Amino acid sequence: MIVVLRAGTPKEEIERICQEIHNQNVITEKSIGQHKVVIGLLGDTAALNGEHIQQISPFIEQVVRVNKPYKRVSQEFRHGPSTVVVPTPNGDVAFGQEHPIVVVAGPCSVENEQMIVETAQRVKAAGAKFLRGGAYKPRTSPYAFQGHGESALELLDKARQASGLGIITEIMDTADIEKVAAVADVLQVGARNMQNFSLLKKVGATGKPILLKRGISATVEEWLMAAEYILAAGNPNVILCERGIRGFDRQYARNTLDLAVVPVLRSLTHLPIMVDPSHGTGKAEYVPPMCLAAIAAGTDSLMVEVHPNPAKALSDGPQSLTPESFEQLMHDVAVVSKTFGRWEQTPDAHLPVMPALVSV
Amino acid sequence: MIVVLRAGTPKEEIERICQEIHNQNVITEKSIGQHKVVIGLLGDTAALNGEHIQQISPFIEQVVRVNKPYKRVSQEFRHGPSTVVVPTPNGDVAFGQEHPIVVVAGPCSVENEQMIVETAQRVKAAGAKFLRGGAYKPRTSPYAFQGHGESALELLDKARQASGLGIITEIMDTADIEKVAAVADVLQVGARNMQNFSLLKKVGATGKPILLKRGISATVEEWLMAAEYILAAGNPNVILCERGIRGFDRQYARNTLDLAVVPVLRSLTHLPIMVDPSHGTGKAEYVPPMCLAAIAAGTDSLMVEVHPNPAKALSDGPQSLTPESFEQLMHDVAVVSKTFGRWEQTPDAHLPVMPALVSV
Amino acid sequence: MIVVLRAGTPKEEIERICQEIHNQNVITEKSIGQHKVVIGLLGDTAALNGEHIQQISPFIEQVVRVNKPYKRVSQEFRHGPSTVVVPTPNGDVAFGQEHPIVVVAGPCSVENEQMIVETAQRVKAAGAKFLRGGAYKPRTSPYAFQGHGESALELLDKARQASGLGIITEIMDTADIEKVAAVADVLQVGARNMQNFSLLKKVGATGKPILLKRGISATVEEWLMAAEYILAAGNPNVILCERGIRGFDRQYARNTLDLAVVPVLRSLTHLPIMVDPSHGTGKAEYVPPMCLAAIAAGTDSLMVEVHPNPAKALSDGPQSLTPESFEQLMHDVAVVSKTFGRWEQTPDAHLPVMPALVSV
Amino acid sequence: MIVVLRAGTPKEEIERICQEIHNQNVITEKSIGQHKVVIGLLGDTAALNGEHIQQISPFIEQVVRVNKPYKRVSQEFRHGPSTVVVPTPNGDVAFGQEHPIVVVAGPCSVENEQMIVETAQRVKAAGAKFLRGGAYKPRTSPYAFQGHGESALELLDKARQASGLGIITEIMDTADIEKVAAVADVLQVGARNMQNFSLLKKVGATGKPILLKRGISATVEEWLMAAEYILAAGNPNVILCERGIRGFDRQYARNTLDLAVVPVLRSLTHLPIMVDPSHGTGKAEYVPPMCLAAIAAGTDSLMVEVHPNPAKALSDGPQSLTPESFEQLMHDVAVVSKTFGRWEQTPDAHLPVMPALVSV
Repeated sequence: MIVVLRAGTPKEEIERICQEIHNQNVITEKSIGQHKVVIGLLGDTAALNGEHIQQISPFIEQVVRVNKPYKRVSQEFRHGPSTVVVPTPNGDVAFGQEHPIVVVAGPCSVENEQMIVETAQRVKAAGAKFLRGGAYKPRTSPYAFQGHGESALELLDKARQASGLGIITEIMDTADIEKVAAVADVLQVGARNMQNFSLLKKVGATGKPILLKRGISATVEEWLMAAEYILAAGNPNVILCERGIRGFDRQYARNTLDLAVVPVLRSLTHLPIMVDPSHGTGKAEYVPPMCLAAIAAGTDSLMVEVHPNPAKALSDGPQSLTPESFEQLMHDVAVVSKTFGRWEQTPDAHLPVMPALVSV
Repeated sequence: MIVVLRAGTPKEEIERICQEIHNQNVITEKSIGQHKVVIGLLGDTAALNGEHIQQISPFIEQVVRVNKPYKRVSQEFRHGPSTVVVPTPNGDVAFGQEHPIVVVAGPCSVENEQMIVETAQRVKAAGAKFLRGGAYKPRTSPYAFQGHGESALELLDKARQASGLGIITEIMDTADIEKVAAVADVLQVGARNMQNFSLLKKVGATGKPILLKRGISATVEEWLMAAEYILAAGNPNVILCERGIRGFDRQYARNTLDLAVVPVLRSLTHLPIMVDPSHGTGKAEYVPPMCLAAIAAGTDSLMVEVHPNPAKALSDGPQSLTPESFEQLMHDVAVVSKTFGRWEQTPDAHLPVMPALVSV
Repeated sequence: MIVVLRAGTPKEEIERICQEIHNQNVITEKSIGQHKVVIGLLGDTAALNGEHIQQISPFIEQVVRVNKPYKRVSQEFRHGPSTVVVPTPNGDVAFGQEHPIVVVAGPCSVENEQMIVETAQRVKAAGAKFLRGGAYKPRTSPYAFQGHGESALELLDKARQASGLGIITEIMDTADIEKVAAVADVLQVGARNMQNFSLLKKVGATGKPILLKRGISATVEEWLMAAEYILAAGNPNVILCERGIRGFDRQYARNTLDLAVVPVLRSLTHLPIMVDPSHGTGKAEYVPPMCLAAIAAGTDSLMVEVHPNPAKALSDGPQSLTPESFEQLMHDVAVVSKTFGRWEQTPDAHLPVMPALVSV
Repeated sequence: MIVVLRAGTPKEEIERICQEIHNQNVITEKSIGQHKVVIGLLGDTAALNGEHIQQISPFIEQVVRVNKPYKRVSQEFRHGPSTVVVPTPNGDVAFGQEHPIVVVAGPCSVENEQMIVETAQRVKAAGAKFLRGGAYKPRTSPYAFQGHGESALELLDKARQASGLGIITEIMDTADIEKVAAVADVLQVGARNMQNFSLLKKVGATGKPILLKRGISATVEEWLMAAEYILAAGNPNVILCERGIRGFDRQYARNTLDLAVVPVLRSLTHLPIMVDPSHGTGKAEYVPPMCLAAIAAGTDSLMVEVHPNPAKALSDGPQSLTPESFEQLMHDVAVVSKTFGRWEQTPDAHLPVMPALVSV
């Protein structure tokens, strides 16, 4: 259940309303937006009477029952999009519908110091805000390269210092959270662990921003419920990342990139959205058009695999761009993002700024 | 097997080369492009020796073996994108990678004269080039509205005259081809009939442009093979239409719109591509962002369901735009298409013309 | 809506009840079972009042509203399983839950007279009741063997005469119905044509038994609705054949054989059920265990591909059994069918006859 | 690479051969079967020359290269089925192709002492060998019942003592392994954690038998690779459990039970197989026929959810059998298992013992 307060409700009145609701044995969570304050009610809200709640204060504009199984991640719970702000050496970066497109780039796995530092510098120069790179790698085979682990974390730290980029890297084991969180600016929960509920609860207990990848055959509801685990554990900083789902045809593309999930998520949740066309298609050739399509579909950020020498990559070579093709892509990303009014630089006077997308 | 001739090969030499190849018991098909002539060899080409073919003439630039099961639809067979030109009362409309985005719009089914004529005029005014509308409707239930059949064809004809738009309508039965072809400018083979091989052969025997929708769970290869049936029957005018595939999650979107299939098709075939986000998502709210994403992914055309009163539509109401929201969409389609250099009007001097998409 | 009459309702009373209901502008269809008569009401039954119907006669035991979109195929419409009886030269063969397991065997396609006649004789000797064999073949590629067509029909007729087996063969084109029906005892509508509604309506207009294969990604409801098209056209003789659905993993098995659909169908429809593990798995090695599993799951019949020389088959060789392995399989089929009380020979005194399956 | 030794190879010679191979920088693992000894070679075997290995000893019968990505779980690695023996208070229970069908039964989650002890006694009396019951429950929603955790483990221990049944329960967090292993006879890795590689490595480091459920959309190869993680970590006691995969139609059955995976697995791996029709279908009504079908398909064991009062179950009620229907099911399981020669009691003299299944 959601209680929406009128603009200008005095602070003391907000406290009083919360207290009154508390007395009915439910938990309250405040979301303070630019204009409005929304109080989310959690717990056994089935027993509450909406009209009685309404009568608590004349400052209550509306009482809404959330009929979805997810509460804290639901659109209604915030009355507007939320922003996840991530501090990086180069400054704060904001993910969200009201902010420019954020691009995350880097190799599948951290291979050695030179490659990760150079890649970081290249992608930074091209306009990326974050470096991705795996220290711990989930690999289908126990005999495949499993990532360099702790030593790779040190290399990521060097790349962070050298480039000023924020770091996004995957956490696979609850035992590694502290180590990984010491280096990473965003913790990634991978597709295979999307329903590793122990891990979700524990990353929820940190304050770190979390990138939650969609499970390979997760429904939208299962994905939002996984995010709900993190929010329910106290961490509201979740970004949802579509990375392709399992389809019936894997002859040309490795996965089916479900771009329509972008407007679907937008209609259901306030959380920021990322799209990863590298895993989504599995082939470098298809990555640039799908990056541009993702922007047009409304994503807030992009994740792109870049490797200095894809042919020699220890993992995911076929889907990695070279630094050169990434630079070209970033040029196109900028043009299309500007068309949608979502690029950070001051808009060029000659550029058409696209109006808000039609809503039906 | 494909034989590529050098620019400027004399006509008689082309004939001589074809004759020589004929003598080896294979069929030849010529594709005459702007700069080059390509001869496709069909039949028992496994027995042919590429080097011997090469020696037939010094004008032969290259002999390529096509290892894919589809031949005539393959990229190699044409050495470049093909264009499907459709004559309409308002003039020829060209579908293809080198032409502006073509928009097809209209209701799921033809309900009565007023609604179809008015819809035609509205979508024409907004920039559509074709009117879609079902006369014969494939419906899951035998008790559901099956389309008005022949009388609907007459109404489509009236809408064609009133608006000058080309007509696209579905053909479900080989027995109806003549009747439907008398009115339609493009014959649509629906998703459920994508592997109705009797129908494919018979529409292949007409000269009409064919819109071949992807089967609900057709692999890319099966889809291209279905197109190959039409080309093999003598009709090269095929447009491929992605309209969503069956996925595991139908709670929010009716189908999974496989937008990555656009660059996949581009790498495999020379045929023009259409995307239908109305069937692809099943919900009007998701149609505009997915139209824009389809353009960014590289589609050549769009199909959009528009109904004067979606709430009262006899079929597919929830996925139909109102004429008003279609007009807004067309505005956005124009802006994004211009960004990609694919809008028909003379480019506005102030507009950035986007360079060719990065190729990796 | 269904009206169930008490046992012993006089014929004239049945007529009177039907007449009364007719007067309310709905269609009635009688199903006369061993003990009960059920009257199905079709048309605008939403307007009818169940209690008023009940009062028409004291012989009316029950009035049931069918809330499913399929009516004539629904379990409720018959109050018990239906039987499809097919006359063959060797006598009538009954398909249905109350009858022994029926085995259909034969090659994918009719290749020549010797192979089809010999195969017929071998599978007949082993216990099959029907010969399958394709005259018209739906093939993914236009360049693949398309079946010998009309001349193959003649060969099937010869095999029929030589073996006394009934013939099951596929119909792909409405134009061929008469020709095929002249030879076939059962017309097969293939997976790719399951939603070819023109074809469904036309085979529904014949009196022939129809084998309706499940579409490659048809939901249970879509499949039952396709059957409903045939029944609605006047033909109640439909057998439903599960033949594997499209899954995400085709590395080892070609399709996913959905055996659980057998009890699902049993709970929803009165129609007889067949399972085809040859197409369902695509590999001869997996066919025998899945035949036995299908019997245990409750199927009424089996379809098995048998070829005298699978390695040289013109189509579907890898999934075809040799006549020898088919004989071994039939031995096992008999043992398992007897365990379930579903084998035609007089039960051996030493055999445990299995009680009716537990219902929960 | 696999080295198969002749029957009767002396112990010292086996040691000498292993030593010689070691010298080539690969690891060896011995599997001692009833008649033969097989030495598995692991590591950089690509560099080895099969003929050179063959010449190490005249006792070497065969040298086989395993081309699959999984090695230790592959059929070739053992030359025959493996058996997982689990000690329980009632004695050792053997899982494997050469042993009787083992039935595991019990509730989804442990609710209280009375229900779990009574259920244990009821299913034991009906013929089950193991009690299943969740202490830690993976639930889609953070607000759903998450299992009683540690206190439930104590209740499982009481049920174990009261019934003598072995205990199978799920492990979700690497931090809980010790606690769970103190009570459980078999540790279950659930579908959602099938690719939680940290967990796989850690359960691989225990000696406990592991029940590895198939991930909701895991390919056969991914599943076998997950098992390979456990074997590679030193634990050969893995049982593979099919529990339904995600399909496109969830209207009637919750998942698609992939029974054909049983013969597929049999052809690829030596590991024992279990089938769980409760999760596989999601509906109690479909569980009994699918249990019998699973036996006919060749499974080695069954997992069945049983709850004293399904309507009031805290989780998975709709798919749970009552104790009464479980008793009926066990009767049928016994009859069908006997038909396949896979029931533990002395075969009844009147019973047909089924010959080995046909191999094609």
